[in-house]
Amino acid sequence: MTPFGRLSLNQATVNPLTVAEAVDLCARHEIPAIGLWREPVARAGLAAAAAVVRSAGLRVSSLCRGGFFTHADPAARQAAIAGNKAAIAEAAALGAPVLVLVSGGLVPGSKDIVLARRMIADAIGEIVPVAQAHGVRLGIEALHPVFAADRCVITRLGEALDLAETFPVDAVGVVVDTYHVWWDAALPADIARAGDRIVSYQVCDWTLPLPADTLLGRGHVGDGHIDFPPITAAVTAAGYAGDIEVEIFNQDIWSAPATTTAATIRDRFPQVF
Amino acid sequence: MTPFGRLSLNQATVNPLTVAEAVDLCARHEIPAIGLWREPVARAGLAAAAAVVRSAGLRVSSLCRGGFFTHADPAARQAAIAGNKAAIAEAAALGAPVLVLVSGGLVPGSKDIVLARRMIADAIGEIVPVAQAHGVRLGIEALHPVFAADRCVITRLGEALDLAETFPVDAVGVVVDTYHVWWDAALPADIARAGDRIVSYQVCDWTLPLPADTLLGRGHVGDGHIDFPPITAAVTAAGYAGDIEVEIFNQDIWSAPATTTAATIRDRFPQVF
Repeated sequence: MTPFGRLSLNQATVNPLTVAEAVDLCARHEIPAIGLWREPVARAGLAAAAAVVRSAGLRVSSLCRGGFFTHADPAARQAAIAGNKAAIAEAAALGAPVLVLVSGGLVPGSKDIVLARRMIADAIGEIVPVAQAHGVRLGIEALHPVFAADRCVITRLGEALDLAETFPVDAVGVVVDTYHVWWDAALPADIARAGDRIVSYQVCDWTLPLPADTLLGRGHVGDGHIDFPPITAAVTAAGYAGDIEVEIFNQDIWSAPATTTAATIRDRFPQVF
Repeated sequence: MTPFGRLSLNQATVNPLTVAEAVDLCARHEIPAIGLWREPVARAGLAAAAAVVRSAGLRVSSLCRGGFFTHADPAARQAAIAGNKAAIAEAAALGAPVLVLVSGGLVPGSKDIVLARRMIADAIGEIVPVAQAHGVRLGIEALHPVFAADRCVITRLGEALDLAETFPVDAVGVVVDTYHVWWDAALPADIARAGDRIVSYQVCDWTLPLPADTLLGRGHVGDGHIDFPPITAAVTAAGYAGDIEVEIFNQDIWSAPATTTAATIRDRFPQVF
Protein backbone atom coordinates (compact mmCIF):
# COMPACT_ATOMS: atom_id res chain seq x y z
CA MET A 1 0.00 0.00 0.00
CA THR A 2 1.05 3.63 -0.34
CA PRO A 3 2.30 5.47 2.72
CA PHE A 4 -1.19 6.93 3.09
CA GLY A 5 -2.47 3.47 3.97
CA ARG A 6 -0.75 3.91 7.34
CA LEU A 7 -1.92 7.46 8.02
CA SER A 8 -4.00 8.02 11.13
CA LEU A 9 -5.54 11.28 12.30
CA ASN A 10 -5.17 11.66 16.02
CA GLN A 11 -8.30 13.41 17.15
CA ALA A 12 -6.34 15.93 19.25
CA THR A 13 -5.15 17.46 15.98
CA VAL A 14 -8.72 18.53 15.24
CA ASN A 15 -9.60 19.19 18.84
CA PRO A 16 -12.82 21.17 18.25
CA LEU A 17 -14.45 18.38 16.20
CA THR A 18 -16.87 15.77 17.47
CA VAL A 19 -16.13 12.12 16.85
CA ALA A 20 -18.61 12.09 13.97
CA GLU A 21 -17.06 15.19 12.42
CA ALA A 22 -13.53 13.81 12.77
CA VAL A 23 -14.61 10.49 11.24
CA ASP A 24 -16.25 12.31 8.37
CA LEU A 25 -13.09 14.37 7.84
CA CYS A 26 -11.03 11.17 7.60
CA ALA A 27 -13.46 9.69 5.09
CA ARG A 28 -13.41 12.79 2.89
CA HIS A 29 -9.60 13.01 2.94
CA GLU A 30 -8.92 9.29 2.53
CA ILE A 31 -7.34 8.92 5.95
CA PRO A 32 -7.92 5.26 6.83
CA ALA A 33 -7.41 5.38 10.60
CA ILE A 34 -8.15 7.56 13.58
CA GLY A 35 -6.73 7.92 17.09
CA LEU A 36 -9.59 8.68 19.45
CA TRP A 37 -9.69 10.60 22.74
CA ARG A 38 -11.79 9.64 25.71
CA GLU A 39 -13.44 13.01 26.28
CA PRO A 40 -15.02 13.40 22.81
CA VAL A 41 -15.89 9.71 22.84
CA ALA A 42 -17.73 10.24 26.13
CA ARG A 43 -19.56 13.24 24.68
CA ALA A 44 -20.67 11.16 21.70
CA GLY A 45 -21.48 8.14 23.84
CA LEU A 46 -19.22 5.10 23.71
CA ALA A 47 -21.54 2.87 21.66
CA ALA A 48 -22.42 5.66 19.26
CA ALA A 49 -18.75 6.57 18.78
CA ALA A 50 -17.84 2.94 18.12
CA ALA A 51 -20.68 2.64 15.63
CA VAL A 52 -19.81 5.77 13.67
CA VAL A 53 -16.17 4.74 13.34
CA ARG A 54 -17.09 1.21 12.34
CA SER A 55 -19.67 2.23 9.78
CA ALA A 56 -17.12 4.55 8.15
CA GLY A 57 -14.74 1.62 7.83
CA LEU A 58 -11.97 3.37 9.79
CA ARG A 59 -9.39 1.59 11.88
CA VAL A 60 -8.92 2.91 15.40
CA SER A 61 -5.18 3.20 15.92
CA SER A 62 -5.27 4.07 19.62
CA LEU A 63 -7.28 5.55 22.43
CA CYS A 64 -5.80 8.54 24.27
CA ARG A 65 -5.37 8.41 27.07
CA GLY A 66 -4.85 6.73 30.36
CA GLY A 67 -2.25 7.44 32.99
CA PHE A 68 -1.92 10.33 35.47
CA PHE A 69 -1.15 7.84 38.21
CA THR A 70 0.74 10.16 40.58
CA HIS A 71 -1.34 11.42 43.49
CA ALA A 72 -0.56 12.15 47.12
CA ASP A 73 -3.97 10.94 48.29
CA PRO A 74 -4.46 7.14 48.24
CA ALA A 75 -8.10 7.60 47.28
CA ALA A 76 -7.06 9.67 44.28
CA ARG A 77 -4.56 6.97 43.28
CA GLN A 78 -7.28 4.35 43.45
CA ALA A 79 -9.60 6.57 41.43
CA ALA A 80 -6.91 6.93 38.77
CA ILE A 81 -6.49 3.17 38.59
CA ALA A 82 -10.26 2.69 38.33
CA GLY A 83 -10.37 5.32 35.60
CA ASN A 84 -7.64 3.52 33.69
CA LYS A 85 -9.48 0.22 33.94
CA ALA A 86 -12.53 1.94 32.48
CA ALA A 87 -10.37 3.39 29.71
CA ILE A 88 -9.12 -0.09 28.83
CA ALA A 89 -12.69 -1.31 28.48
CA GLU A 90 -13.51 1.70 26.31
CA ALA A 91 -10.51 0.97 24.08
CA ALA A 92 -11.74 -2.59 23.63
CA ALA A 93 -15.26 -1.40 22.81
CA LEU A 94 -13.87 1.01 20.22
CA GLY A 95 -11.62 -1.60 18.63
CA ALA A 96 -8.50 0.33 19.67
CA PRO A 97 -5.54 -2.02 20.10
CA VAL A 98 -3.69 0.43 22.34
CA LEU A 99 -4.41 2.69 25.28
CA VAL A 100 -1.81 5.45 25.40
CA LEU A 101 -0.53 6.26 28.91
CA VAL A 102 0.70 9.69 29.97
CA SER A 103 1.91 8.56 33.32
CA GLY A 104 1.86 11.72 35.43
CA GLY A 105 4.29 14.26 36.83
CA LEU A 106 5.72 14.68 40.31
CA VAL A 107 3.39 13.76 43.14
CA PRO A 108 1.73 17.01 44.27
CA GLY A 109 3.58 18.41 47.25
CA SER A 110 6.63 16.19 46.61
CA LYS A 111 9.88 16.62 44.73
CA ASP A 112 10.70 12.92 44.92
CA ILE A 113 10.87 11.82 41.29
CA VAL A 114 11.81 8.29 42.34
CA LEU A 115 8.58 8.07 44.34
CA ALA A 116 6.58 9.25 41.32
CA ARG A 117 8.18 6.63 39.11
CA ARG A 118 7.51 3.87 41.63
CA MET A 119 3.88 4.95 41.93
CA ILE A 120 3.54 4.70 38.15
CA ALA A 121 5.09 1.25 38.01
CA ASP A 122 2.78 0.03 40.79
CA ALA A 123 -0.31 1.45 39.09
CA ILE A 124 0.53 -0.11 35.72
CA GLY A 125 1.00 -3.42 37.49
CA GLU A 126 -2.54 -3.12 38.81
CA ILE A 127 -4.12 -2.51 35.42
CA VAL A 128 -2.11 -5.04 33.40
CA PRO A 129 -4.48 -7.94 34.13
CA VAL A 130 -7.41 -5.83 32.94
CA ALA A 131 -5.55 -4.95 29.76
CA GLN A 132 -4.78 -8.61 29.12
CA ALA A 133 -8.39 -9.59 29.75
CA HIS A 134 -9.53 -7.06 27.15
CA GLY A 135 -6.77 -7.70 24.62
CA VAL A 136 -5.68 -4.06 24.79
CA ARG A 137 -2.01 -3.13 25.02
CA LEU A 138 -0.90 -0.29 27.26
CA GLY A 139 1.45 2.14 25.54
CA ILE A 140 3.81 3.93 27.92
CA GLU A 141 4.64 7.25 26.35
CA ALA A 142 7.83 9.11 27.21
CA LEU A 143 7.08 12.81 27.23
CA HIS A 144 9.59 15.55 26.50
CA PRO A 145 11.47 16.52 29.68
CA VAL A 146 9.89 19.97 29.51
CA PHE A 147 6.80 18.21 30.89
CA ALA A 148 8.62 16.16 33.56
CA ALA A 149 7.44 18.13 36.57
CA ASP A 150 3.78 18.50 35.70
CA ARG A 151 2.74 15.79 33.23
CA CYS A 152 5.10 12.83 32.94
CA VAL A 153 8.24 11.90 34.84
CA ILE A 154 8.99 9.27 32.20
CA THR A 155 11.11 11.33 29.85
CA ARG A 156 13.00 9.00 27.55
CA LEU A 157 12.04 6.14 25.29
CA GLY A 158 14.68 4.01 27.01
CA GLU A 159 13.11 4.71 30.39
CA ALA A 160 9.63 3.86 29.10
CA LEU A 161 11.04 0.67 27.66
CA ASP A 162 12.79 -0.31 30.90
CA LEU A 163 9.42 0.00 32.63
CA ALA A 164 7.48 -1.79 29.89
CA GLU A 165 9.90 -4.71 29.98
CA THR A 166 8.91 -5.48 33.56
CA PHE A 167 5.50 -6.56 32.18
CA PRO A 168 4.41 -9.10 29.55
CA VAL A 169 4.89 -7.95 25.98
CA ASP A 170 1.27 -8.62 25.07
CA ALA A 171 0.16 -6.21 27.79
CA VAL A 172 2.61 -3.30 27.83
CA GLY A 173 4.55 -1.53 25.13
CA VAL A 174 5.88 1.92 24.35
CA VAL A 175 4.76 4.84 22.23
CA VAL A 176 7.30 6.58 20.02
CA ASP A 177 6.28 10.22 19.56
CA THR A 178 8.79 12.23 17.54
CA TYR A 179 7.97 15.47 19.36
CA HIS A 180 8.96 14.00 22.70
CA VAL A 181 12.06 11.98 21.85
CA TRP A 182 13.74 13.46 18.76
CA TRP A 183 16.57 15.12 20.77
CA ASP A 184 17.82 11.91 22.43
CA ALA A 185 21.21 10.61 21.27
CA ALA A 186 20.20 7.16 22.47
CA LEU A 187 17.02 7.17 20.36
CA PRO A 188 18.21 4.89 17.52
CA ALA A 189 19.51 2.30 19.98
CA ASP A 190 16.40 2.53 22.15
CA ILE A 191 14.08 2.12 19.15
CA ALA A 192 16.04 -0.93 18.02
CA ARG A 193 15.85 -2.37 21.52
CA ALA A 194 12.11 -1.65 21.71
CA GLY A 195 11.34 -4.02 18.82
CA ASP A 196 7.85 -5.45 19.20
CA ARG A 197 7.24 -3.32 22.28
CA ILE A 198 6.47 -0.42 19.94
CA VAL A 199 2.68 -0.14 19.97
CA SER A 200 2.24 3.31 18.47
CA TYR A 201 4.18 5.78 16.34
CA GLN A 202 3.07 9.40 16.52
CA VAL A 203 4.47 12.31 14.57
CA CYS A 204 4.50 16.08 14.78
CA ASP A 205 7.25 18.66 14.61
CA TRP A 206 9.27 20.64 17.16
CA THR A 207 8.76 24.32 16.38
CA LEU A 208 10.20 27.41 18.05
CA PRO A 209 9.55 29.62 19.88
CA LEU A 210 7.46 27.70 22.37
CA PRO A 211 4.08 29.33 23.02
CA ALA A 212 2.97 30.59 26.44
CA ASP A 213 1.20 27.27 26.95
CA THR A 214 4.06 24.85 26.38
CA LEU A 215 1.63 22.07 25.64
CA LEU A 216 0.46 23.73 22.43
CA GLY A 217 3.81 24.24 20.73
CA ARG A 218 3.67 21.45 18.17
CA GLY A 219 3.78 21.90 14.44
CA HIS A 220 2.82 20.16 11.22
CA VAL A 221 5.44 17.75 9.92
CA GLY A 222 7.99 19.87 8.08
CA ASP A 223 7.37 23.11 9.96
CA GLY A 224 10.07 22.52 12.55
CA HIS A 225 13.41 20.96 13.35
CA ILE A 226 12.80 17.21 13.45
CA ASP A 227 14.52 14.94 10.95
CA PHE A 228 11.73 12.38 10.49
CA PRO A 229 13.11 9.88 7.97
CA PRO A 230 15.85 8.39 10.21
CA ILE A 231 13.36 8.00 13.07
CA THR A 232 10.76 6.37 10.83
CA ALA A 233 13.42 4.09 9.34
CA ALA A 234 14.49 3.01 12.81
CA VAL A 235 10.89 2.37 13.88
CA THR A 236 10.34 0.34 10.72
CA ALA A 237 13.57 -1.60 11.16
CA ALA A 238 12.45 -2.43 14.69
CA GLY A 239 9.45 -4.17 13.16
CA TYR A 240 6.66 -1.66 13.58
CA ALA A 241 4.38 -1.65 10.54
CA GLY A 242 1.24 -0.18 12.10
CA ASP A 243 -0.52 3.13 11.80
CA ILE A 244 1.31 6.43 12.05
CA GLU A 245 -0.70 8.99 13.96
CA VAL A 246 -0.39 12.68 13.27
CA GLU A 247 -1.00 14.25 16.66
CA ILE A 248 -0.60 18.03 16.95
CA PHE A 249 -1.53 20.27 19.85
CA ASN A 250 -1.57 23.79 18.46
CA GLN A 251 -4.15 26.54 18.91
CA ASP A 252 -3.54 27.96 15.43
CA ILE A 253 -4.20 24.56 13.88
CA TRP A 254 -7.29 24.13 16.03
CA SER A 255 -8.52 27.51 14.79
CA ALA A 256 -7.91 26.62 11.14
CA PRO A 257 -10.61 24.95 9.03
CA ALA A 258 -10.43 21.20 9.61
CA THR A 259 -10.33 20.54 5.88
CA THR A 260 -7.19 22.68 5.64
CA THR A 261 -5.64 20.73 8.48
CA ALA A 262 -6.48 17.40 6.89
CA ALA A 263 -5.13 18.53 3.52
CA THR A 264 -1.90 19.72 5.13
CA ILE A 265 -1.52 16.43 6.98
CA ARG A 266 -1.81 14.49 3.74
CA ASP A 267 0.44 16.92 1.92
CA ARG A 268 3.19 16.61 4.53
CA PHE A 269 2.83 12.90 5.32
CA PRO A 270 5.35 11.71 2.69
CA GLN A 271 8.02 13.77 4.52
CA VAL A 272 7.74 11.33 7.41
CA PHE A 273 9.44 8.64 5.29
CA MET B 1 34.49 24.36 56.17
CA THR B 2 30.78 25.19 56.20
CA PRO B 3 28.74 24.64 53.05
CA PHE B 4 29.16 28.35 52.32
CA GLY B 5 32.86 27.72 51.74
CA ARG B 6 31.87 26.10 48.44
CA LEU B 7 29.36 28.72 47.32
CA SER B 8 30.07 30.49 44.06
CA LEU B 9 28.03 33.25 42.47
CA ASN B 10 27.75 32.73 38.75
CA GLN B 11 27.81 36.17 37.26
CA ALA B 12 24.79 35.46 35.05
CA THR B 13 22.66 35.48 38.20
CA VAL B 14 23.42 39.18 38.61
CA ASN B 15 23.49 39.88 34.91
CA PRO B 16 23.27 43.70 35.12
CA LEU B 17 26.37 44.02 37.33
CA THR B 18 29.90 44.76 36.17
CA VAL B 19 32.69 42.42 37.23
CA ALA B 20 33.74 44.89 39.93
CA GLU B 21 30.18 45.16 41.24
CA ALA B 22 29.71 41.38 41.27
CA VAL B 23 33.03 40.91 43.04
CA ASP B 24 32.06 43.51 45.62
CA LEU B 25 28.71 41.78 46.12
CA CYS B 26 30.49 38.49 46.81
CA ALA B 27 32.80 40.15 49.31
CA ARG B 28 29.95 41.82 51.17
CA HIS B 29 27.91 38.60 51.32
CA GLU B 30 30.79 36.28 52.18
CA ILE B 31 30.57 34.36 48.91
CA PRO B 32 34.10 33.04 48.39
CA ALA B 33 33.99 32.26 44.65
CA ILE B 34 32.62 33.65 41.41
CA GLY B 35 31.82 32.21 37.99
CA LEU B 36 32.70 34.82 35.39
CA TRP B 37 31.28 35.48 31.93
CA ARG B 38 33.30 36.55 28.94
CA GLU B 39 31.18 39.54 27.96
CA PRO B 40 31.38 41.48 31.25
CA VAL B 41 35.05 40.47 31.54
CA ALA B 42 35.66 41.99 28.11
CA ARG B 43 33.85 45.16 29.14
CA ALA B 44 36.02 45.43 32.25
CA GLY B 45 39.18 44.49 30.39
CA LEU B 46 40.75 41.10 30.96
CA ALA B 47 43.69 42.27 33.08
CA ALA B 48 41.52 44.62 35.13
CA ALA B 49 38.92 41.89 35.74
CA ALA B 50 41.61 39.43 36.81
CA ALA B 51 43.08 42.03 39.15
CA VAL B 52 39.81 42.96 40.84
CA VAL B 53 38.94 39.32 41.47
CA ARG B 54 42.42 38.56 42.78
CA SER B 55 42.59 41.56 45.07
CA ALA B 56 39.23 40.60 46.59
CA GLY B 57 40.63 37.15 47.35
CA LEU B 58 37.89 35.38 45.40
CA ARG B 59 38.33 32.06 43.67
CA VAL B 60 37.16 31.92 40.06
CA SER B 61 35.13 28.72 39.74
CA SER B 62 34.65 28.85 35.97
CA LEU B 63 34.50 31.02 32.90
CA CYS B 64 31.30 30.98 30.84
CA ARG B 65 31.39 30.26 28.09
CA GLY B 66 32.77 28.65 25.05
CA GLY B 67 31.06 26.43 22.54
CA PHE B 68 28.55 27.27 19.79
CA PHE B 69 30.51 25.15 17.37
CA THR B 70 27.71 24.35 14.89
CA HIS B 71 27.79 26.46 11.74
CA ALA B 72 27.00 25.76 8.12
CA ASP B 73 29.77 28.04 6.90
CA PRO B 74 33.33 26.67 7.29
CA ALA B 75 34.64 30.16 7.97
CA ALA B 76 32.13 30.54 10.80
CA ARG B 77 33.21 27.18 12.22
CA GLN B 78 36.83 28.30 12.16
CA ALA B 79 35.89 31.59 13.78
CA ALA B 80 34.12 29.67 16.56
CA ILE B 81 37.20 27.54 17.13
CA ALA B 82 39.42 30.62 17.22
CA GLY B 83 37.01 32.25 19.67
CA ASN B 84 37.14 29.21 21.90
CA LYS B 85 40.93 29.22 21.87
CA ALA B 86 40.82 32.86 22.97
CA ALA B 87 38.33 31.94 25.71
CA ILE B 88 40.71 29.28 27.02
CA ALA B 89 43.48 31.86 27.26
CA GLU B 90 41.12 34.22 29.07
CA ALA B 91 40.17 31.50 31.54
CA ALA B 92 43.83 30.92 32.28
CA ALA B 93 44.45 34.64 32.75
CA LEU B 94 41.51 34.83 35.17
CA GLY B 95 42.61 31.80 37.14
CA ALA B 96 39.48 29.89 36.11
CA PRO B 97 40.15 26.14 36.11
CA VAL B 98 37.25 25.46 33.73
CA LEU B 99 35.81 26.85 30.53
CA VAL B 100 32.12 25.89 30.28
CA LEU B 101 31.03 24.80 26.80
CA VAL B 102 27.50 25.24 25.47
CA SER B 103 28.09 23.31 22.33
CA GLY B 104 25.48 24.63 19.91
CA GLY B 105 22.18 23.57 18.39
CA LEU B 106 21.35 22.18 14.99
CA VAL B 107 23.45 23.48 12.14
CA PRO B 108 21.47 26.36 10.58
CA GLY B 109 19.53 25.07 7.59
CA SER B 110 19.97 21.45 8.62
CA LYS B 111 17.91 19.00 10.65
CA ASP B 112 20.76 16.50 10.90
CA ILE B 113 21.42 16.21 14.63
CA VAL B 114 24.11 13.61 14.01
CA LEU B 115 25.99 16.11 11.86
CA ALA B 116 25.73 18.73 14.60
CA ARG B 117 27.12 16.32 17.16
CA ARG B 118 30.00 15.34 14.90
CA MET B 119 30.83 18.99 14.28
CA ILE B 120 30.99 19.57 18.03
CA ALA B 121 33.25 16.58 18.62
CA ASP B 122 35.58 17.73 15.85
CA ALA B 123 35.74 21.27 17.21
CA ILE B 124 36.48 20.14 20.76
CA GLY B 125 39.26 17.99 19.37
CA GLU B 126 40.79 21.08 17.81
CA ILE B 127 40.82 23.10 21.02
CA VAL B 128 41.93 20.35 23.41
CA PRO B 129 45.66 20.96 22.84
CA VAL B 130 45.16 24.64 23.63
CA ALA B 131 43.28 23.75 26.81
CA GLN B 132 46.08 21.43 27.86
CA ALA B 133 48.72 24.04 27.12
CA HIS B 134 46.90 26.52 29.37
CA GLY B 135 45.98 24.04 32.12
CA VAL B 136 42.27 24.82 31.65
CA ARG B 137 39.70 22.02 31.54
CA LEU B 138 36.83 22.17 29.09
CA GLY B 139 33.46 21.44 30.70
CA ILE B 140 30.91 20.00 28.28
CA GLU B 141 27.50 21.02 29.55
CA ALA B 142 24.39 19.03 28.69
CA LEU B 143 21.50 21.43 28.24
CA HIS B 144 17.85 20.61 28.84
CA PRO B 145 16.30 19.12 25.69
CA VAL B 146 14.04 22.15 25.41
CA PHE B 147 17.16 23.86 24.03
CA ALA B 148 18.24 21.02 21.71
CA ALA B 149 17.27 22.69 18.44
CA ASP B 150 18.65 26.15 19.06
CA ARG B 151 21.37 26.02 21.72
CA CYS B 152 22.80 22.59 22.46
CA VAL B 153 22.22 19.20 20.87
CA ILE B 154 24.00 17.57 23.80
CA THR B 155 21.03 16.96 26.04
CA ARG B 156 21.99 14.43 28.69
CA LEU B 157 24.84 14.13 31.16
CA GLY B 158 25.52 10.64 29.83
CA GLU B 159 25.89 12.00 26.31
CA ALA B 160 28.22 14.77 27.48
CA LEU B 161 30.25 12.16 29.32
CA ASP B 162 30.45 9.85 26.31
CA LEU B 163 31.91 12.75 24.36
CA ALA B 164 34.25 13.87 27.15
CA GLU B 165 35.64 10.37 27.51
CA THR B 166 37.01 10.50 23.97
CA PHE B 167 39.50 13.10 25.24
CA PRO B 168 42.10 13.10 28.04
CA VAL B 169 40.64 13.60 31.51
CA ASP B 170 42.92 16.54 32.26
CA ALA B 171 41.52 18.38 29.25
CA VAL B 172 37.80 17.62 29.05
CA GLY B 173 35.14 17.03 31.66
CA VAL B 174 31.43 17.61 32.15
CA VAL B 175 29.30 20.20 33.88
CA VAL B 176 26.42 19.02 36.06
CA ASP B 177 23.69 21.69 36.08
CA THR B 178 20.62 20.67 38.04
CA TYR B 179 18.29 22.72 35.84
CA HIS B 180 19.30 20.84 32.75
CA VAL B 181 19.51 17.25 33.98
CA TRP B 182 17.22 16.80 37.00
CA TRP B 183 14.55 14.90 35.01
CA ASP B 184 16.83 12.11 33.75
CA ALA B 185 16.26 8.65 35.25
CA ALA B 186 19.84 7.78 34.36
CA LEU B 187 21.24 10.77 36.26
CA PRO B 188 22.47 8.96 39.38
CA ALA B 189 24.26 6.34 37.29
CA ASP B 190 25.70 8.94 34.92
CA ILE B 191 26.99 11.08 37.80
CA ALA B 192 28.64 8.04 39.35
CA ARG B 193 30.20 7.16 36.02
CA ALA B 194 31.39 10.74 35.54
CA GLY B 195 33.64 10.59 38.60
CA ASP B 196 36.60 12.90 38.15
CA ARG B 197 35.23 14.13 34.84
CA ILE B 198 32.92 16.44 36.81
CA VAL B 199 34.51 19.87 36.51
CA SER B 200 31.62 22.06 37.64
CA TYR B 201 28.41 21.74 39.61
CA GLN B 202 25.78 24.42 38.98
CA VAL B 203 22.44 24.79 40.71
CA CYS B 204 19.15 26.55 40.11
CA ASP B 205 15.56 25.36 40.19
CA TRP B 206 13.01 24.29 37.57
CA THR B 207 9.98 26.55 37.93
CA LEU B 208 6.71 26.58 36.04
CA PRO B 209 5.19 28.01 33.95
CA LEU B 210 8.02 28.68 31.54
CA PRO B 211 8.26 32.34 30.51
CA ALA B 212 7.92 33.55 26.93
CA ASP B 213 11.70 33.47 26.66
CA THR B 214 12.39 29.87 27.68
CA LEU B 215 15.96 30.75 28.54
CA LEU B 216 14.86 32.90 31.48
CA GLY B 217 12.70 30.38 33.34
CA ARG B 218 15.07 29.43 36.14
CA GLY B 219 14.38 29.95 39.82
CA HIS B 220 16.18 30.29 43.12
CA VAL B 221 16.93 26.99 44.82
CA GLY B 222 13.74 25.95 46.59
CA ASP B 223 11.31 27.85 44.35
CA GLY B 224 10.68 24.94 42.00
CA HIS B 225 10.49 21.20 41.57
CA ILE B 226 14.07 19.94 41.82
CA ASP B 227 15.07 17.62 44.65
CA PHE B 228 18.63 18.89 45.20
CA PRO B 229 19.99 16.75 48.05
CA PRO B 230 20.11 13.43 46.14
CA ILE B 231 21.84 15.12 43.20
CA THR B 232 24.37 16.85 45.43
CA ALA B 233 24.98 13.61 47.30
CA ALA B 234 25.62 11.79 44.02
CA VAL B 235 28.00 14.52 42.81
CA THR B 236 29.84 14.36 46.13
CA ALA B 237 30.00 10.58 46.09
CA ALA B 238 31.48 10.79 42.60
CA GLY B 239 34.36 12.73 44.11
CA TYR B 240 33.54 16.33 43.26
CA ALA B 241 34.44 18.63 46.14
CA GLY B 242 34.77 21.91 44.27
CA ASP B 243 32.70 25.05 44.10
CA ILE B 244 28.95 25.01 43.63
CA GLU B 245 27.80 27.77 41.35
CA VAL B 246 24.38 29.34 41.67
CA GLU B 247 23.50 30.26 38.11
CA ILE B 248 20.04 31.67 37.45
CA PHE B 249 18.70 33.26 34.28
CA ASN B 250 15.55 35.10 35.31
CA GLN B 251 14.42 38.61 34.43
CA ASP B 252 12.67 39.11 37.78
CA ILE B 253 15.87 38.24 39.61
CA TRP B 254 17.88 40.51 37.33
CA SER B 255 15.43 43.32 38.13
CA ALA B 256 15.69 42.74 41.90
CA PRO B 257 18.33 44.53 43.98
CA ALA B 258 21.55 42.53 43.81
CA THR B 259 21.85 42.52 47.60
CA THR B 260 18.45 40.81 47.80
CA THR B 261 19.58 38.22 45.28
CA ALA B 262 22.81 37.54 47.15
CA ALA B 263 20.97 37.27 50.45
CA THR B 264 18.46 34.83 48.95
CA ILE B 265 21.27 32.74 47.45
CA ARG B 266 22.91 32.41 50.86
CA ASP B 267 19.59 31.78 52.56
CA ARG B 268 18.69 28.97 50.15
CA PHE B 269 22.14 27.43 49.73
CA PRO B 270 21.82 24.94 52.63
CA GLN B 271 18.84 23.41 50.75
CA VAL B 272 21.29 22.19 48.11
CA PHE B 273 22.69 19.65 50.60
